[in-house]
Amino acid sequence: MNDDSLKKIRAAIRDVPDFPKPGIVFKDITPLLAQPEAMSLALDAIEEKVDGVRIDKVIGIDARGFIFGAAIADRLKAGFIPLRKKGKLPYRSHEVSYALEYGEATIEIHEDAVSEGENVYLVDDLLATGGTAAAAIHLIEKLKGNLVASAFLIELTFLKGREQLGTTAPVHSIISY
Amino acid sequence: MNDDSLKKIRAAIRDVPDFPKPGIVFKDITPLLAQPEAMSLALDAIEEKVDGVRIDKVIGIDARGFIFGAAIADRLKAGFIPLRKKGKLPYRSHEVSYALEYGEATIEIHEDAVSEGENVYLVDDLLATGGTAAAAIHLIEKLKGNLVASAFLIELTFLKGREQLGTTAPVHSIISY
Repeated sequence: MNDDSLKKIRAAIRDVPDFPKPGIVFKDITPLLAQPEAMSLALDAIEEKVDGVRIDKVIGIDARGFIFGAAIADRLKAGFIPLRKKGKLPYRSHEVSYALEYGEATIEIHEDAVSEGENVYLVDDLLATGGTAAAAIHLIEKLKGNLVASAFLIELTFLKGREQLGTTAPVHSIISY
Repeated sequence: MNDDSLKKIRAAIRDVPDFPKPGIVFKDITPLLAQPEAMSLALDAIEEKVDGVRIDKVIGIDARGFIFGAAIADRLKAGFIPLRKKGKLPYRSHEVSYALEYGEATIEIHEDAVSEGENVYLVDDLLATGGTAAAAIHLIEKLKGNLVASAFLIELTFLKGREQLGTTAPVHSIISY
């Protein structure tokens, strides 16, 4: 991915001040999603990171992670696995809880979502504190999936989320702040 | 799409009894998502429905609708627009509320998501009572988008949801029960 392409991706991400609460500047990816060229480049960048590796399953996290994860799964001809907030998955599931700024959250994966030894690619839009991604990686390991890599469209490096992931697999981000 | 392909799609959808509550048989699409061939065929079927028509924006509804919508947008080189549950979109939004079995729900679209006259394709996993889809169509019309068609992977025909949509644009479903 060349600098010009990365510039186009970055230019399509919008700052929204005071969302979800005063003092926070939210990185809004909806202008990027709405522009086919920028969206395609972002998907190219995520796809490139596992070039030449067979991926069996792409994992996307409820809800924005579904957007990139599903498109990448389609491009790679891999299966797509949704990780969901508690209570949304209909079949037998494993769950893991993790701390939020206030309180905690729980995400789930279907028991039969990943088979032992399958090559897994975790894709999400944002790496912030790393809590959700660490929980996702924990669930992948519980199912004995082989995490090949993780990729995030945006990394907020000042939150040091990648230090929380607890994996030796490569962690990629396309745009960092 | 031939009968054999439709059979493969249908075979990859799992019945989960008593979800989300006793007496309901839930149509679980996660086995389909996890199988690249079945997933690809489902996307082919949804893509085919707008063959030869320029699509500017594909609209997907929070959260499972993001899965099909984003992959279709990528295939069509169209923009992807997420419709979200109230409070999730960061920028200025229009909202519409609609009745559920108990109470009501509200979905939102960003004000700048669709420009006047753009060709829009609404994609979701399920057409049940039609409340969510009708709300989505209302929002598309509010932004003066031109709804070319709607497509649903699954239609529960006994709920007569398509009669609630309030649009003259074609309504497609791939698998119906």
